[in-house]
Amino acid sequence: MSKNLTKREEDYSRWYNELVVSADLAENSGVRGCMVIKPYGYAIWEKMQAELDRMFKETGHSNAYFPLFVPKSMFEAEEKNAEGFAKECAIVTHYRLKNDPDKPGKLMVDPNAKLEEELIVRPTSEAIIWSTYKNWVQSYRDLPLLINQWANVVRWEMRTRLFLRTAEFLWQEGHTAHATKVEAIEETERMMNVYADFVQNFMAIPVVKGIKTANERFAGADETYCIEALMQDGKALQAGTSHFLGQNFAKAFDVKFTNKEGKQEHVWGTSWGVSTRLMGALVMTHSDDKGLVLPPNLAPIQVVIVPIFKNHEQFDQIKLVVDDLVQSLKKLGVSVKFDVRDTLSPGFKFNEHELKGVPIRIAVGPKDIENGTFEIARRDTLTKEIVSKDGVVHYVSNLLEQIQNDLFNKALDYRNNHITEVNSFEEFKDVLENKAGFISAHWDGTSETEEKIKDLTKATIRCIPLDRKNEEGICIFSGGQSVGRVLFAKAY
Amino acid sequence: MSKNLTKREEDYSRWYNELVVSADLAENSGVRGCMVIKPYGYAIWEKMQAELDRMFKETGHSNAYFPLFVPKSMFEAEEKNAEGFAKECAIVTHYRLKNDPDKPGKLMVDPNAKLEEELIVRPTSEAIIWSTYKNWVQSYRDLPLLINQWANVVRWEMRTRLFLRTAEFLWQEGHTAHATKVEAIEETERMMNVYADFVQNFMAIPVVKGIKTANERFAGADETYCIEALMQDGKALQAGTSHFLGQNFAKAFDVKFTNKEGKQEHVWGTSWGVSTRLMGALVMTHSDDKGLVLPPNLAPIQVVIVPIFKNHEQFDQIKLVVDDLVQSLKKLGVSVKFDVRDTLSPGFKFNEHELKGVPIRIAVGPKDIENGTFEIARRDTLTKEIVSKDGVVHYVSNLLEQIQNDLFNKALDYRNNHITEVNSFEEFKDVLENKAGFISAHWDGTSETEEKIKDLTKATIRCIPLDRKNEEGICIFSGGQSVGRVLFAKAY
Repeated sequence: MSKNLTKREEDYSRWYNELVVSADLAENSGVRGCMVIKPYGYAIWEKMQAELDRMFKETGHSNAYFPLFVPKSMFEAEEKNAEGFAKECAIVTHYRLKNDPDKPGKLMVDPNAKLEEELIVRPTSEAIIWSTYKNWVQSYRDLPLLINQWANVVRWEMRTRLFLRTAEFLWQEGHTAHATKVEAIEETERMMNVYADFVQNFMAIPVVKGIKTANERFAGADETYCIEALMQDGKALQAGTSHFLGQNFAKAFDVKFTNKEGKQEHVWGTSWGVSTRLMGALVMTHSDDKGLVLPPNLAPIQVVIVPIFKNHEQFDQIKLVVDDLVQSLKKLGVSVKFDVRDTLSPGFKFNEHELKGVPIRIAVGPKDIENGTFEIARRDTLTKEIVSKDGVVHYVSNLLEQIQNDLFNKALDYRNNHITEVNSFEEFKDVLENKAGFISAHWDGTSETEEKIKDLTKATIRCIPLDRKNEEGICIFSGGQSVGRVLFAKAY
Repeated sequence: MSKNLTKREEDYSRWYNELVVSADLAENSGVRGCMVIKPYGYAIWEKMQAELDRMFKETGHSNAYFPLFVPKSMFEAEEKNAEGFAKECAIVTHYRLKNDPDKPGKLMVDPNAKLEEELIVRPTSEAIIWSTYKNWVQSYRDLPLLINQWANVVRWEMRTRLFLRTAEFLWQEGHTAHATKVEAIEETERMMNVYADFVQNFMAIPVVKGIKTANERFAGADETYCIEALMQDGKALQAGTSHFLGQNFAKAFDVKFTNKEGKQEHVWGTSWGVSTRLMGALVMTHSDDKGLVLPPNLAPIQVVIVPIFKNHEQFDQIKLVVDDLVQSLKKLGVSVKFDVRDTLSPGFKFNEHELKGVPIRIAVGPKDIENGTFEIARRDTLTKEIVSKDGVVHYVSNLLEQIQNDLFNKALDYRNNHITEVNSFEEFKDVLENKAGFISAHWDGTSETEEKIKDLTKATIRCIPLDRKNEEGICIFSGGQSVGRVLFAKAY
């Protein structure tokens, strides 16, 4: 807290790591690659959860819970999915420890407690869920199945970073089953739109909606829809994905239904998820060199009030006024904290609340009491204003809305200024190196070209935007035919 | 659904298993010992979570999230705790699968991906959390730490039963750290009281508050407080526990703080939890031979309205009246469903809603429309009444409260009628066999006697009730001195 953060332009990656830890969002644990989400970070995640959960229920979904473990034979049933996750699976092989005869006080794995079949700790739950759906679906009347799960999953990553890539992370995963292909595609698109609404309106992060190329598609899906955001360092971040699974899992797990004509068919599936990765996107979209900047919708504390006083008498006068203000703000549903800690100076508190991204800070000293005013500071712009006591509740409530909108618009401007059209590979490399951001370019549609570009530049195709223009062109790399531009970027 | 449930008096255990599955609460999964919590069951669990979470926050706690895995060396640091859970640990030993060269399309554990140190899937999180608290606590100003986690845990049970004992279950676990012993004990008692309030007022299940004997104490605790409920078959069920951990984990993980006098001390700890086991208690306390009986507080649907009609005209008339009623009830926060499924008969629907425990069923037919009435049926008493349209909203809203209270009082009567004082071991065995329930008896205070009684009768000491009278007596088994009665029972 006393030390300043590394500046973004000095070392963006270090700035991020320092900020996540010093703002009390999360920290590395004593378990390789796993993080501890601290209370302040978790309170933000809870706000995301509550809003997403509301949106899922509003679109007809129910929550359920499926096992953490997947037996190996079940895991490998859908081959592409299994292949896609096989290299990053944590595997349970034993079910008991015993005292180590050679080391008093120490335990060892009991070799007599080996499992007959290994259990995979779920990296994603399609396998376990579709093996269950088999028994839940007989007739068209049982469809659609619209289910979501809030859960932890494990993917054994070699290089981890808090929130962005951790061995264990928290997420929600929707898994739905439908009678027709059309319905399943509608669901896939609906949930991509729910994610886009949430990320844009609630998190104030603009996104591009699009479709992944075959290379970047979810293992086991026929099509992956995604929303892509742009971070302040010009790197892209995949903020959510929604997969049209075709009949792949239905066939792998033999999930059939009798249709209205009495004929047996395989059902059509979707799955969709967002994770604690969104916490990383939140930090990297809005925050600055002084610390977190939180959109009011996500701030555990929206308004903090800091009293400035030299003696008890002054404090008592301030308290009288502030108690009133706190009550009025709470009535409007504003989350407000009166910071009365008496061992810390106002300056220390100001720094701390800036670091933690509290959207509005109100300072009150003896002069304010005299004048009937408050000093109101915005975290996002770091500007201050003196506001009369009379209109203050209205002012604060409007300002919270204003900040939410301003943050979105600021990020949108940045994003829009960082979509660059290029028409040659030289230009492509130049923009990638000197400006970064999304690069809009023609591509010949082959995985081969995509991979070569990735090998040479580390940039990948983030998506084929849903709203792209039909525009014939020449692939910047191969010179082959293209029917429209795609978005490339380096990505988290 | 078409088949009737086994009757409770025929086979209570079978009745329970059938009911949990047929009421769509949960089912066994394809993973040994792990259950799938189905949407209807999960909706009830979500109501429990929401209320508990509110109560935890009201008492000053914040949520956080700690890793699923515990490295073996960390796990074994607190020896008693490690010993207590060692025999039921799922253990991750490898982090990658590879293609099986001998079996095309199959995967095998990659022997080259063995972990240097095995990871225990958390059976409880004291070890990982206290290893983290070490860095969070320096001074008395950092205390108390009041943290809760909602999580899944794994305990490798050999004999599992839906909700009551499963290899994986969902729970919350509070973990707090305090500057003084007195504060830690206060916290332990506070959380036991929170649990008791929740289980009694929200779940309508009466409990006895008490302290566990050394035999039944949590591994690593100095004292375990508990709330004990009584099921309809006369067996007890531990509904929640709150542990005073002394300085055991603080010492094992070297968690010290500088007190106000500048001296280093180990902190004092507590932990407390309730789990999806409460779902089992809910089922076994209130339900009957026709299915679930849910207290209105926990019912995902509190009121169901079934239309009875022969033609579209009749349905349209009914719908007009019902739409009004639905709106009015929703305004009061009542969760109501108008069951318009047109391929099912009213009788089928009645059975289904009875099976699923919907507290109030309203039936409306053409005669009711004529007379301006509704037929209102209570699930708990299976009684019906004709109620005039005019007062119906008020009637329903009162009835929900009435049902909530009646369920508690009914369970309380049963429980109170099943606490039997005995003064000899013969009497003890007789009551245990012929009446069951809690048996209040004198005990000499030794683990030896407790274990002998357990070996002979399968009954254990459920708790030393907090409100027990000081009453000198003679141990029913050993004849030794006793200072007050304890509660024995067979238990889940």
